[in-house]
Amino acid sequence: MLIVMDAQFKDEDLKGVVKRIEEMGFEAHVMPGAQSTAVGITGNPRSLDPRVFEVLPGVKQAIPVTKPYKQASRDFRAQDTRIPVGKNGLVIGGDAFVVMAGPCAVESEEQTVRIAKAVKAAGAHVLRGGAFKPRTSPYDFQGLGEDGLKILDAARAETGLPIITEILDQRTLELVYSHADILQVGARNMQNFALLKEIGRCDKPVMLKRGLSATIDEWLMSAEYIMAEGNKKVMLCERGIRTFSSHTRNTLDLNAVPVVHKLTHLPVLVDPSHGTGVRTMVAPMARAAAAVGAHGVIIEVHDRPDEALCDGPQALPPDQFAKLVEQLRAMGGVLGYRL
Amino acid sequence: MLIVMDAQFKDEDLKGVVKRIEEMGFEAHVMPGAQSTAVGITGNPRSLDPRVFEVLPGVKQAIPVTKPYKQASRDFRAQDTRIPVGKNGLVIGGDAFVVMAGPCAVESEEQTVRIAKAVKAAGAHVLRGGAFKPRTSPYDFQGLGEDGLKILDAARAETGLPIITEILDQRTLELVYSHADILQVGARNMQNFALLKEIGRCDKPVMLKRGLSATIDEWLMSAEYIMAEGNKKVMLCERGIRTFSSHTRNTLDLNAVPVVHKLTHLPVLVDPSHGTGVRTMVAPMARAAAAVGAHGVIIEVHDRPDEALCDGPQALPPDQFAKLVEQLRAMGGVLGYRL
Amino acid sequence: MLIVMDAQFKDEDLKGVVKRIEEMGFEAHVMPGAQSTAVGITGNPRSLDPRVFEVLPGVKQAIPVTKPYKQASRDFRAQDTRIPVGKNGLVIGGDAFVVMAGPCAVESEEQTVRIAKAVKAAGAHVLRGGAFKPRTSPYDFQGLGEDGLKILDAARAETGLPIITEILDQRTLELVYSHADILQVGARNMQNFALLKEIGRCDKPVMLKRGLSATIDEWLMSAEYIMAEGNKKVMLCERGIRTFSSHTRNTLDLNAVPVVHKLTHLPVLVDPSHGTGVRTMVAPMARAAAAVGAHGVIIEVHDRPDEALCDGPQALPPDQFAKLVEQLRAMGGVLGYRL
Amino acid sequence: MLIVMDAQFKDEDLKGVVKRIEEMGFEAHVMPGAQSTAVGITGNPRSLDPRVFEVLPGVKQAIPVTKPYKQASRDFRAQDTRIPVGKNGLVIGGDAFVVMAGPCAVESEEQTVRIAKAVKAAGAHVLRGGAFKPRTSPYDFQGLGEDGLKILDAARAETGLPIITEILDQRTLELVYSHADILQVGARNMQNFALLKEIGRCDKPVMLKRGLSATIDEWLMSAEYIMAEGNKKVMLCERGIRTFSSHTRNTLDLNAVPVVHKLTHLPVLVDPSHGTGVRTMVAPMARAAAAVGAHGVIIEVHDRPDEALCDGPQALPPDQFAKLVEQLRAMGGVLGYRL
Repeated sequence: MLIVMDAQFKDEDLKGVVKRIEEMGFEAHVMPGAQSTAVGITGNPRSLDPRVFEVLPGVKQAIPVTKPYKQASRDFRAQDTRIPVGKNGLVIGGDAFVVMAGPCAVESEEQTVRIAKAVKAAGAHVLRGGAFKPRTSPYDFQGLGEDGLKILDAARAETGLPIITEILDQRTLELVYSHADILQVGARNMQNFALLKEIGRCDKPVMLKRGLSATIDEWLMSAEYIMAEGNKKVMLCERGIRTFSSHTRNTLDLNAVPVVHKLTHLPVLVDPSHGTGVRTMVAPMARAAAAVGAHGVIIEVHDRPDEALCDGPQALPPDQFAKLVEQLRAMGGVLGYRL
Repeated sequence: MLIVMDAQFKDEDLKGVVKRIEEMGFEAHVMPGAQSTAVGITGNPRSLDPRVFEVLPGVKQAIPVTKPYKQASRDFRAQDTRIPVGKNGLVIGGDAFVVMAGPCAVESEEQTVRIAKAVKAAGAHVLRGGAFKPRTSPYDFQGLGEDGLKILDAARAETGLPIITEILDQRTLELVYSHADILQVGARNMQNFALLKEIGRCDKPVMLKRGLSATIDEWLMSAEYIMAEGNKKVMLCERGIRTFSSHTRNTLDLNAVPVVHKLTHLPVLVDPSHGTGVRTMVAPMARAAAAVGAHGVIIEVHDRPDEALCDGPQALPPDQFAKLVEQLRAMGGVLGYRL
Repeated sequence: MLIVMDAQFKDEDLKGVVKRIEEMGFEAHVMPGAQSTAVGITGNPRSLDPRVFEVLPGVKQAIPVTKPYKQASRDFRAQDTRIPVGKNGLVIGGDAFVVMAGPCAVESEEQTVRIAKAVKAAGAHVLRGGAFKPRTSPYDFQGLGEDGLKILDAARAETGLPIITEILDQRTLELVYSHADILQVGARNMQNFALLKEIGRCDKPVMLKRGLSATIDEWLMSAEYIMAEGNKKVMLCERGIRTFSSHTRNTLDLNAVPVVHKLTHLPVLVDPSHGTGVRTMVAPMARAAAAVGAHGVIIEVHDRPDEALCDGPQALPPDQFAKLVEQLRAMGGVLGYRL
Repeated sequence: MLIVMDAQFKDEDLKGVVKRIEEMGFEAHVMPGAQSTAVGITGNPRSLDPRVFEVLPGVKQAIPVTKPYKQASRDFRAQDTRIPVGKNGLVIGGDAFVVMAGPCAVESEEQTVRIAKAVKAAGAHVLRGGAFKPRTSPYDFQGLGEDGLKILDAARAETGLPIITEILDQRTLELVYSHADILQVGARNMQNFALLKEIGRCDKPVMLKRGLSATIDEWLMSAEYIMAEGNKKVMLCERGIRTFSSHTRNTLDLNAVPVVHKLTHLPVLVDPSHGTGVRTMVAPMARAAAAVGAHGVIIEVHDRPDEALCDGPQALPPDQFAKLVEQLRAMGGVLGYRL
């Protein structure tokens, strides 16, 4: 923490700041300057609320220095985390590029298995599909629930693809846990701390989506909630932030990828389907995600998008998806990742 | 829904659009124009996903018209909703202005009762205090839990003030329900739909805070989740949105108050403590909230902010709070509300 | 500037940082800490680019401390600036509350004089009216130009009200200067530095509107551009920022008012007409502006809004305006300002 | 324009809306529906202000349909615009990928020529360099002015590279015009309409940067200002928008590229140097720009960034730049563009 004094601070103000720091058990370093006088704090075991100092007389601003996350930080672990998934040796993180694909929602066994086979044939590594769906409106389709999870089991049995599916709810965690290979936490639940803690006590990989208005620090703090309970198998997923721009559903923030690489050792994927909400933008943004250094993408694919119960208009048809995977593979030859 | 055709659309594109609308069971109204041709849809019982039409050939844009919320809408109920709270005849909504106040977190019985007496003496109508605290960091104080709820009971017994406290979690809903007079849903849980549904099955008033990046429509959709399950006693609370502006913790969006008055019959309050995060801004923004037409404010008060375990720097001391209530009352004489 | 080292920094990295600081002629203060090591810089005459240090090996982050504006800062001048306007003793700033009002655009002498009389009768102190209009579309009405300025002269002669009008353009500065009492710089020109410099060489008061996405620091830096050239008569005007929220044209940011009071001695006004773009929201937000401590408001008034060539739907009719001024005056009795 | 009536509208309200439309000389199409009644307008020659209708009794919302730009629209011209630059046959637009590079600011002839040779050797097509610099602070280096322009002439003479440089100011337009091959309009001047109009009367290519908070429609309207005056050689440049995210200087919005391709025939480039402000992010985001379909990039290169007078920390050293150009070329082999 660095405390900056007002231009017209009084001697007693400075003494008050030093006293407050020492009362808290930390060390104060006064730095008198031509422009402004500042006081550094060292010895604090964790991040402090800057406003504790900003309400003291003569103080202009207090600036936090220590990052509040630990286990998620590159400072804690310099090497990239690699997360094994399922039983067939798939690893997420490092120099591999992973493709997850499938329908937005599980609608029927026939639909799910059919699409699962198509995405596998095109080169996908993981099958996505929602059994519990978070919908803005209570009147929209909310997912097949447990039946949907059983259908995902069937699709895995048929194709061998591990399954990623969303966990919405503390009350269904055990159920979803028993069917999924990767637990997905959606953007709206990124700060559902009660749910994060319970997931932190599971031993399955988790994909934590970034909240619509989450800073990168908040996102990593939510990863920390899971890791602090014991589960270290956290992968991140950028899926678009909310900005003033309204030509796309969200603003997919690819800047986050290199920033996250610098701050954390956890893998980071990109979701161009929800990030843009527009079918014609999915392939360009997926290519951009690979070019910027993501560890993978998660893409909605549907072979009959007109009949889809959810987000059909952003789903790629299987042939376009297959072409995209080919392009991503060819780009890997140039950019140095394996797909 | 209004569908706008591309400038170079073909006859068969227009026919395709009309066919799709009719297949869905709705009625199509073609409007040929000099600048552009559009197709209106009527007969749809609920809001449609515009992208269903935007992926059709020759279509430029589809524009939703019907609002997705019903019971929360002024169209559904023109008259202001008034929500009785507790046993002493307090009513929220209408021409009364309600003041909720108390500490951020319940820290001890002594602290809570002391502050409760102070805010009552100053004119507050409801006591606020958190027993379960949502914290960005897993390493920060998480609240006293059930012990905190019992302390709130004691404070109510002592002062007669009804209690508002936050519900974080499906697993503690029954517990919180049995102690609170108003259930508070925090900004981070505004789209925790599983929790909203369970709260919708309770018979106690709910205060639903606006999410940091929630549009007003999304906020009202979350109110709708609660109302659709049966609980109509929903009040809204604006508490700051996330913008590029970083001089305050959040950007308290007072524009939301008149907008909400127009769209819904539900009462709307303002939280200037979390909305700004800065003690010196709480009173000015509370006055502005009253001037703009809010039904009340919720304010953090602490008599020993240096010792507060949570958000001390944004808490008002009791004397400043008392002065603020006086000002709000005097403004009511000019602006026509009762306090 | 405070430089924070990486967790795994090497001795030579720290030496490199200190060397770089000393080469620049400043003083380095090393603060070794348990959590992280930091280096403070003092002796720098002006603000530094933090990235100069962030590219050095072993550096995690550099945090600026000194604010880049000087003359605009409260540190430079503690007392509120009061700006005399016109010849009738009007002063903006301090404990007076100023009301500026008039049509969006000057359309004809008859229209302008008629509205000028109406706003004067209602209690306005300054007449607003645009002769040069910045329009998003090149095909929209661009203002009457010099003819409009002459009409404003006539309205002043008739009513005695001083005139505020927008300056869009270096090439028309001399012309606008010779007719206006206050030069208005619009949001889109807030960082038109060439124009700001030329205005800084004038001796007339300036009202500088905040850019749609300007931070408060950038806004004050633009005031500094004017002041650095010699013109100290700068008043600020908040008129809405751009956020994700789309229910109003912009998000009028009333939080800016108390923040600006803290950072600068310059007066600050609020424009609820452009800030919301919605007639029914103008009065509530104007009241809120007064309640939060603004030095005045600027409001669009039109007696025949259906015929207005520009922004008719956000203009108040004269009777609603008169009622608003009365309310603002009554609020002043409670809140302690003069109107 | 589509006008949506309130749920409780009266017959006379609907008649009033129809009457207003017909008075304006347009045609009204009433669409009665189960959920809501709407009125379409056709026959309007240009876009209307929706608020003109929203203030009428019984009207809930008016939704614009016609886009306000014409010449910039794909509707006006379906084929991609290609813009010849300089005398050596360079064309921007179509399937070529253009690389512009050079220092942020022209500092001396020696520096500029040295860097120009380096970027040419690495494969750049255009030399960038600022002679007039827009700086947030009046106390920062403002550029060499006319001397800088002469230095750019020397660099062109030496390398044959055409020159892009920023025009800040109506008063220096003639001067900049006589030295530049491409006139650059910076983000802060995107809505300096007076300047845009004067540039519209020039016959040289223009690169129009997107404003920090400009919607894509506003950006295209600014292009329209230039085109409406006669100059059709407009290329666009995405350079980052302002969002809540603060890990990078701005949020480079690559989503804009495919959106712009759909809406306009004009070429679009990307500026990853200003868009991120961080050296290590320039190459990843430049690769992503190529992958998403941009027509080129503009990159800051400096061989002695520690000595740079402006933005040194975001400049690439020549060797990293050369490596980036190679990667971009190799990606072109996979993605189908020429570099």
